[in-house]
Amino acid sequence: MTEIQTLIGFHAVSSALKGAAGDIEWLRVLAHSRNKRLREIESRASDAGVKIIKSTPAELDQLAGQQRHQGVIAGFRGGNVATEGQLHTILDAVEGVPLILVLDGVQDPHNLGACLRTAEAAGVQLVILCKDRSAGITPAVRRAASGAAETLAIIQATNLARVLRELKQRGIWLAGTSDAATSELYTTDLTGPLALVMGSEGSGLRRLTGEICDYLVSIPMAGQVESLNVSVATGICLYEINRQRRAQA
Amino acid sequence: MTEIQTLIGFHAVSSALKGAAGDIEWLRVLAHSRNKRLREIESRASDAGVKIIKSTPAELDQLAGQQRHQGVIAGFRGGNVATEGQLHTILDAVEGVPLILVLDGVQDPHNLGACLRTAEAAGVQLVILCKDRSAGITPAVRRAASGAAETLAIIQATNLARVLRELKQRGIWLAGTSDAATSELYTTDLTGPLALVMGSEGSGLRRLTGEICDYLVSIPMAGQVESLNVSVATGICLYEINRQRRAQA
Repeated sequence: MTEIQTLIGFHAVSSALKGAAGDIEWLRVLAHSRNKRLREIESRASDAGVKIIKSTPAELDQLAGQQRHQGVIAGFRGGNVATEGQLHTILDAVEGVPLILVLDGVQDPHNLGACLRTAEAAGVQLVILCKDRSAGITPAVRRAASGAAETLAIIQATNLARVLRELKQRGIWLAGTSDAATSELYTTDLTGPLALVMGSEGSGLRRLTGEICDYLVSIPMAGQVESLNVSVATGICLYEINRQRRAQA
Repeated sequence: MTEIQTLIGFHAVSSALKGAAGDIEWLRVLAHSRNKRLREIESRASDAGVKIIKSTPAELDQLAGQQRHQGVIAGFRGGNVATEGQLHTILDAVEGVPLILVLDGVQDPHNLGACLRTAEAAGVQLVILCKDRSAGITPAVRRAASGAAETLAIIQATNLARVLRELKQRGIWLAGTSDAATSELYTTDLTGPLALVMGSEGSGLRRLTGEICDYLVSIPMAGQVESLNVSVATGICLYEINRQRRAQA
């Protein structure tokens, strides 16, 4: 059964309308408002065949709880979150050189959302999460992802090690990040088909995950701080991969 | 008068001990504990001449409020936060090519902390905050900064435009980031003395700040997401600056 999540506010709702309108179950908009942005969202939803429910401020307030709804809330099926059984179907549809992000246990919803947002902006085609050790794709994650959670292909893997081995069998290299790596991000060739594997906020990559990786790279650290926020580290790595690929092209 | 802030838990306290022990006013540690990490912190603090107060769990709980104290809390003077009057003194002490981070209104403590953490890791010598539009260096910011707030030189500027002009007069280039920039980060020479200027989470650079900048650069966006988290964008830019400088050296 598919769970219905609420997307709250302009940004979350318009991103879903843009990238995944077919997964919007209903749209609640403030009745009798002349707000131009609200009317635009309503008209786009109507064009996409979404069921529209005109609502009072009190009804929207109740649905939104503590959050600022700006007059619009959508019910979303979260249809893009897949299971590992769909891995090969998703990979078969990838155009260009594969760029995959694997998150081995990012727990904080704010961090997970920022990782998804960054992945989408960097052109990642698939994000794989370790189901047991990662935050789920909750409303808080969707908010922090600024629309990326609705448009990215995401797999929640129950057996991450097996999924990683399947990626390898398809010729995709696994690059893990680790403080203890002997190669540095900037001196490593990252232009081939690649899955970037990031560990958890506190303890980094698990030993088993690290061992499955083809190689480990580190981000140079100039100061006394021991590590970077996981979403910042993800951004630095993904953008360096893209820079190398573009320099080579 | 200097405000005393509480640093709570292993990480915050040991970072301060490492980078700024002279600014620790007192250290409270759990009495009668055999925890090795606690005893190490206590012995380092004692070597640094910090006043040590043995405390009961109840005393620590009360000071820590909702936060996990792990048996150790320090009183910290926050001596590294300076005013714009100290700009030239700080710049005079910079070794190597200047790399400065200017945050023109990052409001969220989690984001500001992550920006500081990233700046320290990237070897930034000075962070300049817009005092009126930025979060202060609060305990929440210090926690998210993982020790960087205690070791970085930070200026809270009341008149950011004037400070930026003074940087220019010293031969430091101002590179602003903007979605609307015509130059891209990766095709811009960032090897000279540089201040990277980042806007606020929601609205980016203010018009006036953008106009003072020598040039604006954008981060390439491949997907539908319109912008990156400010700490992620900061990390991508600072690490690209470092990559270019190292490639040139």
